[in-house]
Amino acid sequence: MDLPLFVKEHIARSLREDLVHGDITSQTLIPASDASSAVFIAKEDFILCGLFVAREALHTLDSSIRMQMFATEGAAVEKGETIARITGTTRSLLAGERVALNYMQRLSGIATLTSKYVAAVEGTGARVLDTRKTTPGMRFLEKYAVRTGGGTNHRFGLYDGILIKDNHIKAAGGVKQAVIKAKASHRFLRVEVEVETTYDVIEALDAGADIIMLDNMSVEKIAEAVDIAKGKVPLEVSGNVTLKNIKTIAETGVDMISVGALTHSARAADISMKMGDVT
Amino acid sequence: MDLPLFVKEHIARSLREDLVHGDITSQTLIPASDASSAVFIAKEDFILCGLFVAREALHTLDSSIRMQMFATEGAAVEKGETIARITGTTRSLLAGERVALNYMQRLSGIATLTSKYVAAVEGTGARVLDTRKTTPGMRFLEKYAVRTGGGTNHRFGLYDGILIKDNHIKAAGGVKQAVIKAKASHRFLRVEVEVETTYDVIEALDAGADIIMLDNMSVEKIAEAVDIAKGKVPLEVSGNVTLKNIKTIAETGVDMISVGALTHSARAADISMKMGDVT
Amino acid sequence: MDLPLFVKEHIARSLREDLVHGDITSQTLIPASDASSAVFIAKEDFILCGLFVAREALHTLDSSIRMQMFATEGAAVEKGETIARITGTTRSLLAGERVALNYMQRLSGIATLTSKYVAAVEGTGARVLDTRKTTPGMRFLEKYAVRTGGGTNHRFGLYDGILIKDNHIKAAGGVKQAVIKAKASHRFLRVEVEVETTYDVIEALDAGADIIMLDNMSVEKIAEAVDIAKGKVPLEVSGNVTLKNIKTIAETGVDMISVGALTHSARAADISMKMGDVT
Amino acid sequence: MDLPLFVKEHIARSLREDLVHGDITSQTLIPASDASSAVFIAKEDFILCGLFVAREALHTLDSSIRMQMFATEGAAVEKGETIARITGTTRSLLAGERVALNYMQRLSGIATLTSKYVAAVEGTGARVLDTRKTTPGMRFLEKYAVRTGGGTNHRFGLYDGILIKDNHIKAAGGVKQAVIKAKASHRFLRVEVEVETTYDVIEALDAGADIIMLDNMSVEKIAEAVDIAKGKVPLEVSGNVTLKNIKTIAETGVDMISVGALTHSARAADISMKMGDVT
Amino acid sequence: MDLPLFVKEHIARSLREDLVHGDITSQTLIPASDASSAVFIAKEDFILCGLFVAREALHTLDSSIRMQMFATEGAAVEKGETIARITGTTRSLLAGERVALNYMQRLSGIATLTSKYVAAVEGTGARVLDTRKTTPGMRFLEKYAVRTGGGTNHRFGLYDGILIKDNHIKAAGGVKQAVIKAKASHRFLRVEVEVETTYDVIEALDAGADIIMLDNMSVEKIAEAVDIAKGKVPLEVSGNVTLKNIKTIAETGVDMISVGALTHSARAADISMKMGDVT
Amino acid sequence: MDLPLFVKEHIARSLREDLVHGDITSQTLIPASDASSAVFIAKEDFILCGLFVAREALHTLDSSIRMQMFATEGAAVEKGETIARITGTTRSLLAGERVALNYMQRLSGIATLTSKYVAAVEGTGARVLDTRKTTPGMRFLEKYAVRTGGGTNHRFGLYDGILIKDNHIKAAGGVKQAVIKAKASHRFLRVEVEVETTYDVIEALDAGADIIMLDNMSVEKIAEAVDIAKGKVPLEVSGNVTLKNIKTIAETGVDMISVGALTHSARAADISMKMGDVT
Repeated sequence: MDLPLFVKEHIARSLREDLVHGDITSQTLIPASDASSAVFIAKEDFILCGLFVAREALHTLDSSIRMQMFATEGAAVEKGETIARITGTTRSLLAGERVALNYMQRLSGIATLTSKYVAAVEGTGARVLDTRKTTPGMRFLEKYAVRTGGGTNHRFGLYDGILIKDNHIKAAGGVKQAVIKAKASHRFLRVEVEVETTYDVIEALDAGADIIMLDNMSVEKIAEAVDIAKGKVPLEVSGNVTLKNIKTIAETGVDMISVGALTHSARAADISMKMGDVT
Repeated sequence: MDLPLFVKEHIARSLREDLVHGDITSQTLIPASDASSAVFIAKEDFILCGLFVAREALHTLDSSIRMQMFATEGAAVEKGETIARITGTTRSLLAGERVALNYMQRLSGIATLTSKYVAAVEGTGARVLDTRKTTPGMRFLEKYAVRTGGGTNHRFGLYDGILIKDNHIKAAGGVKQAVIKAKASHRFLRVEVEVETTYDVIEALDAGADIIMLDNMSVEKIAEAVDIAKGKVPLEVSGNVTLKNIKTIAETGVDMISVGALTHSARAADISMKMGDVT
Repeated sequence: MDLPLFVKEHIARSLREDLVHGDITSQTLIPASDASSAVFIAKEDFILCGLFVAREALHTLDSSIRMQMFATEGAAVEKGETIARITGTTRSLLAGERVALNYMQRLSGIATLTSKYVAAVEGTGARVLDTRKTTPGMRFLEKYAVRTGGGTNHRFGLYDGILIKDNHIKAAGGVKQAVIKAKASHRFLRVEVEVETTYDVIEALDAGADIIMLDNMSVEKIAEAVDIAKGKVPLEVSGNVTLKNIKTIAETGVDMISVGALTHSARAADISMKMGDVT
Repeated sequence: MDLPLFVKEHIARSLREDLVHGDITSQTLIPASDASSAVFIAKEDFILCGLFVAREALHTLDSSIRMQMFATEGAAVEKGETIARITGTTRSLLAGERVALNYMQRLSGIATLTSKYVAAVEGTGARVLDTRKTTPGMRFLEKYAVRTGGGTNHRFGLYDGILIKDNHIKAAGGVKQAVIKAKASHRFLRVEVEVETTYDVIEALDAGADIIMLDNMSVEKIAEAVDIAKGKVPLEVSGNVTLKNIKTIAETGVDMISVGALTHSARAADISMKMGDVT
Repeated sequence: MDLPLFVKEHIARSLREDLVHGDITSQTLIPASDASSAVFIAKEDFILCGLFVAREALHTLDSSIRMQMFATEGAAVEKGETIARITGTTRSLLAGERVALNYMQRLSGIATLTSKYVAAVEGTGARVLDTRKTTPGMRFLEKYAVRTGGGTNHRFGLYDGILIKDNHIKAAGGVKQAVIKAKASHRFLRVEVEVETTYDVIEALDAGADIIMLDNMSVEKIAEAVDIAKGKVPLEVSGNVTLKNIKTIAETGVDMISVGALTHSARAADISMKMGDVT
Repeated sequence: MDLPLFVKEHIARSLREDLVHGDITSQTLIPASDASSAVFIAKEDFILCGLFVAREALHTLDSSIRMQMFATEGAAVEKGETIARITGTTRSLLAGERVALNYMQRLSGIATLTSKYVAAVEGTGARVLDTRKTTPGMRFLEKYAVRTGGGTNHRFGLYDGILIKDNHIKAAGGVKQAVIKAKASHRFLRVEVEVETTYDVIEALDAGADIIMLDNMSVEKIAEAVDIAKGKVPLEVSGNVTLKNIKTIAETGVDMISVGALTHSARAADISMKMGDVT
């Protein structure tokens, strides 16, 4: 299957953003017919993500560019490793370099950070989830990077998951009323409810909630909630999760831990493009 | 002046990304006519950026939402501070919350990180510059955030600045030839050339380069380059700049220091929306 | 909340489709400054749907058109009833008439047909569901019309619901394997599986399916499935449902009955616009 | 000639409408590399229309899908007949199935209904015309379906035909004035005028109308109009035309009969996709 | 009626074309809050066209700009005359100046050139027509300018007029066959046929052509064609028409003369914007 | 490198502009399977520009059209010369003819006029520059045509060049202040300032202006300015430049002369398409 059209359009806009009326330096100094090859090289260890997006960016710019891939999506790439080789006119390779790298670096950064959180909970049975705290316009790709790094996607938006929060509870007249009403209205989606106390965990269970999100609770309170709900419904922990505390949280026995930082605070992986000559 | 149309379109796409066919939780649990107010609250200290973008996002969703701002773009906001109050239907406030926050958090994150780099070089006369290492599709806004944090924008893309790199030099037959050719072709843009040795600094000066970028050079080599070029052309340092070493670099007397991390590795500022009742 | 932007864009495209370079008859024969009022009149009994879409279409064409509504979305409108009055320049009213009516007629047609199916199962406890058999590009609006007519929406697309069909079962190695794998992968969505025999109903139950769709089964077989599954999971009937047989099907005790005809074969409601003079 | 770009864009939007972030069921249960073939099968007799649109939809999703066609546009397909075979990855075939079918079913439905009206007037010399009562956004395709079913297109929109209605007549000061003014302004288009009485037929003839539309007139009145105008200008009948009365109307000797139902009330043709294995 | 959406989109793209990431000179030198007024002044005599487009451009950039118009579309503006006054922030006025002027200058240029051709044939009864030789993307506006200058629009594109040329004649087997076939297929459009000899004029008349275009014929041949066809069908002259020979051509008695130069070779009217202070 | 996406989109919109629902004449009279070849022929001498745009237009319409080019971009084509041969279905060639020609004729017209200005200053060392007075939406292509004709591009828009005009000077408090402020803010762009007197030339020089534009000055005053500034900064002349006076202006020794007429008042080159048979 080709990349979705809205991703292709995102790529096209990003190319326009960088080029507008053209790469004026290369147009001045590099003959139009010059051809080269170049390699993408890892400048540090990371989980690779976005190579297909980078390729699409290069193809969109110049349909005659060819890419030979030496690593696969999700692979643990090591510093110094050659990820891919691209061949085309020198002008096109230089014109597409930055956009291709920007996608790959950001997506690999997210995949890499995710993989660290996933490694931290290894053996506990807990899954690491993303949130909706993504860069505007990049959610589809960023959630793909989370999966590539071993994480699990929470809902993609407000449209494909029921998550009852405090304002919904207030409007509905209580946890129980909210859960019951939501379950009656949505047969095809599970109903998740966000709670802040163990009391509410009990009420949510009574009402038949399908998933309970423990919001900003201490590890002790999380452990209490696990005692109450374990084996009945999955529990998700959310709020103030870090690489330092995630293992402790996971060891309480919760099923899912969502981490906003995966997408909102990942730093870019370090990748560079090195030009060579056509071989 | 209104926000540029491509920014409005970015916002519209981001809203669609989060909503698709609607906020199904709120549509089920919150009456359409319920009205509320909500506040945006700083959960940590940061430099505020993106409030106008957040407002536009909310207006695009629901033209009847009103926003009262308590802080200005670029202000140093403190933990606990109320940034703005918004009023509208409860459904609209909840539907727009995440997109508004995602813009503000990312842009404030970049402004905040920039301000730290700027503070680090205070008194040295050096300017902190951004790069083209931005999130695809977000360059205009991310460069705005850099300015908001006290940084200076380098070129916006390949179209509005001449930056001669190694491949251009190779194709042109040397630093001198490249600079001369570029100057002859572009009367309205200064010609910047990237060099890696002090020898090349001299050659670039001879050729009449307008700006010289010292790429990945040691502090010692940077100091040598300053000795050679100071007072003749501005020098820009690029590569491996961190919050730790930027002051030392700046103290060599270079004019500009570009930092990719400003945009590619800033973490989001922590902001939350708290719902209240209409007052 | 304003209409979603993709609906506004749909409307804008539909106006362009009808107008291209303009309403050449009115431009020739009606003075630009002529103002009129007009009324939308029901030419038969139906359930009203799409009045807000019609208003947006008129506003998009001419932001000075005003609409006064006399009936609400979902109301049972009677033949001869005046639905709304619009005021504006005569040219604008005539130019927007057809697009406004085309939306209202199609959506009201769907709402009306839906309401007939809903009425047919009244008292049985069964819900009437739509399908993905919608007019390309109109799904959001057509599913809105189904809700307006008293129906319930099934998933909006392939993205917001798990529906395991025969090919998925084949690929997974059986009903049980498919259901278990899907449940393990999707915590936030219920898992529905389509079966064709009562044997498969049992297997689906064993595997923990959340919803079972009985595909093209006879009323007798449906009744058997109800005996097996009632009180355990909701059952949905799909295939060959008509206004004639839906009541019999509903009386078996199934929970949901999906009807493709709601959207793929509804005929338009008969509505006309009658021009008058400004009052 | 390729499909027009606005049709390609319609298809792309329709795919996005159904897929948004992906076909989550198939992604979970079907290996990415699984390949299949599938056939489109007629579940009833109908006139085939839209096969090229279906193919474009599948190609847009996955450029490697191949389609072998066994029937041609406009062919009378019989129940059980295989229309086409498609080959590709199983995921792509399942992801594109519904959109491809939705186009084909709707267009074939219109072609089929049109062919029934055309058959009903066979031998009378009257042509069956469509109207502007089309699904918003689908007019080009729906009018193509009308032609495929043997019908004739009336104007495509307000831009490519002069049709003088009551409001134009009122504004111009009478049938005669309206016709004369329109003829003087538009040399390249014929001038059609809508009348409701035989008196107006005479006035329209006197004014030099090129076509006269008899709006909602009884068969007797239509016959009178034919007596008056036959051999002078073509007559079009419009309003309340059904499959039952169209033959009687046609036998009066009118030239054209326009039928809104062709596009606004056709039911979908029944077509299904059946997966097999790669052969 | 508002400007059509595709015109608004054209304007938005043109603004983006000029601004991309902003008016960097004004952002540097003019305070954001500075307000001014400015006037559009005619630097030569011309027929005004495009003032509404200019206003829309300014509004699109900054919805708070106000325009007071002192001249109307189609007016003969004299050198030195003030056309309109605009008020807004200085930055916005300067940012929108060029795009507003570019529209007005081009459209006024076309209107002015058209008016000269129209004046040249005054008293002869011949109409001056445009062609499809327009600037890509600007046809709607350029044909509006032709009307504003007193000209008449020929068909807008290939979609709204039948014009049989040599290749069609060849494919159909002769003038007669082509005309007859076209008339049988298109009841709502007149059939125009392009001929190059008086012999073909006769054949076209015999076949019932509605309009005959005399392509690249000498004035003598045109006169012969008029003798043959006058009073039967309108004649259009096309090819090599200039301001010098149009009167002679018109005096032969032809009905219409089409002139490609109106749109493909008009020079811009000279208009400038002069800034003042807010009054 | 492929054509930029915004150019491809421009082409697609231009095709839609001409075709809307189709080329109704050819669809009626030419069999779908008829194939032809056609040639583009120069009807006068001109500098060729836009052949690649024409090819893209034809490919966009019908990806099976093939073009064989006999002349290169920028070549001086002679009357009667065959520029290119295209092969495809007759319908596609006729449908794409006008759009392909409109691009080529306009761009060749600009290239040709530019080449005349360039020839006029030959030997003087002065360059001929374009302005921002371009057709809205066509700037990229029109500036490409200027280069093709031997001219030099001034800035592409308000975003890629600093040009200080009278209003900026007024706001900044004088020529000197404006220049100094702009230079301090923009390290990567030269600072050009527009002056109207020799006194201001001196002030601009003192302030360190990088380029000085002499606006609407007499040849005598230009000569004085050259005396003052020659060898210090490049001088650009702007305003009231014609083919008659440009040589005299160039002989004063100025470096650049900008001419709005290149783009705002070029007449189209005369090119026609002649159909033949497939060879």
